[in-house]
Amino acid sequence: MGAGLIVNGQPADSLPLTDRGLQYGDGLFETMRWQNGAVQFWDDHYARLQKGCQQLGIPCPDKELLDSELRKLIDNARALAERRVIKFILTRGSGGRGYKSPDDVKPTRIFSLHPFPDYPEKNYSQGVRLRLCETRLAKNPALAGIKHLNRLEQVLARNEWQTDEFAEGLMLDQDEHVIEATMSNVFWLKGEKIFTPSVEQCGIAGIMRGKILQIAEDLNFDTEVGEYNLDDLLTSGGVFLSNSILGIWPVSHFMDKHWTPHPVIQSLAQKLQS
Amino acid sequence: MGAGLIVNGQPADSLPLTDRGLQYGDGLFETMRWQNGAVQFWDDHYARLQKGCQQLGIPCPDKELLDSELRKLIDNARALAERRVIKFILTRGSGGRGYKSPDDVKPTRIFSLHPFPDYPEKNYSQGVRLRLCETRLAKNPALAGIKHLNRLEQVLARNEWQTDEFAEGLMLDQDEHVIEATMSNVFWLKGEKIFTPSVEQCGIAGIMRGKILQIAEDLNFDTEVGEYNLDDLLTSGGVFLSNSILGIWPVSHFMDKHWTPHPVIQSLAQKLQS
Repeated sequence: MGAGLIVNGQPADSLPLTDRGLQYGDGLFETMRWQNGAVQFWDDHYARLQKGCQQLGIPCPDKELLDSELRKLIDNARALAERRVIKFILTRGSGGRGYKSPDDVKPTRIFSLHPFPDYPEKNYSQGVRLRLCETRLAKNPALAGIKHLNRLEQVLARNEWQTDEFAEGLMLDQDEHVIEATMSNVFWLKGEKIFTPSVEQCGIAGIMRGKILQIAEDLNFDTEVGEYNLDDLLTSGGVFLSNSILGIWPVSHFMDKHWTPHPVIQSLAQKLQS
Repeated sequence: MGAGLIVNGQPADSLPLTDRGLQYGDGLFETMRWQNGAVQFWDDHYARLQKGCQQLGIPCPDKELLDSELRKLIDNARALAERRVIKFILTRGSGGRGYKSPDDVKPTRIFSLHPFPDYPEKNYSQGVRLRLCETRLAKNPALAGIKHLNRLEQVLARNEWQTDEFAEGLMLDQDEHVIEATMSNVFWLKGEKIFTPSVEQCGIAGIMRGKILQIAEDLNFDTEVGEYNLDDLLTSGGVFLSNSILGIWPVSHFMDKHWTPHPVIQSLAQKLQS
């Protein structure tokens, strides 16, 4: 049994082959940062999970139940003091006739604990190189925004490059709009105004993305969420990436452009840590 | 251990939680008909699997290996004489860093054996009722045609109705083109010409779909594969559905239309059984 794995409240390391998470990618996940003895932004992660459950028609487990399972996971792993990554997967469980759900859905809850990634300090101080992916995101409002288990587009995009030279790959939709990177959301600056793409048609509404928009408002920066193309990003004064684990990475290089970390990005990163 | 489950050549009933099939829907499947002591159209299913592997960058297992595992599955289940459904899932296995594949991919091979569905005889003689789904298919040529594990669109579409009145639901893409039904391909007739939608942008290239196009040619019917809207289907002389398990079902009712089974559909179904 993996000490860092809790399935439906019990230590486990495997899943029945009948689970719809495997059969159809029929489920959701959350990737979270454990630090200072708690899941950072747990309320926000739970709220997104609820939204995903509503969108997919999966009964959402009570927060109290997930809290107790989180405690089990952490107690088991004796990892109270250090930073960790916690991944939670919720599937529609087993059963049903083909794609049709069973009448009585019993979702599967999977908590797993992982080491915190060893990101180079220069990703934060100097920024990262971003590449442009060929794999495009398909548009489907029924699946947009939520963090569901159908992630083949991200897998294909992330496997376009093998070298460590690039930390991330930017993805466009089928109409050449900029949407996000393979595992992070994207932002850019014009003057002191902060832009990020809408995730109404495709892409994931990152928890860190939401926090950054909120922090930007607290710091009195203007923000705009909309439909943008590559030129909008390429003519900007600075680009950055975000997710719940990495926080904020400035982009140093993308295509033929080079940026030094913009003071606004540094302000956001500082505010985030305060 | 389920007698009707073989994982990487061994009886098993569970899968490591780290498998990328669960984590990302990172894999492919085939649903096949076992009858007369063999998998019907096994060569075609294997060819589609190969194509899917190539498209997703997963190493495809040798046919001889899968043949030997198929024999184990059938021997275990002592189901040589009767009709069964065999489902095969191939995932990219475990490992990698997030969406990135491991350097040394070890795919997971899962064979499972299922009862043959008890479809009413009248689905064949009188036809079935088809409804129109609200859930749309997203367009992505990188994932179109192949039978991958990212099937949330089909799950959402199939769960739009609960009653047995409708046997299937028709799905359109985001631009209102007719593509397929939730678990079957769709065809229609104008005179003796047979039409079916292209699956270049979305949808699955069904093995039975390919067989029907081939049989239609053998019987000297004209065929056309293209981009169509609902009006093309609604003004046709007959509609039918196909997949590897159900074979061919004429559609009796769809929206405000009613059709009696067309002689051409009966010719195709007869030729398929010969």
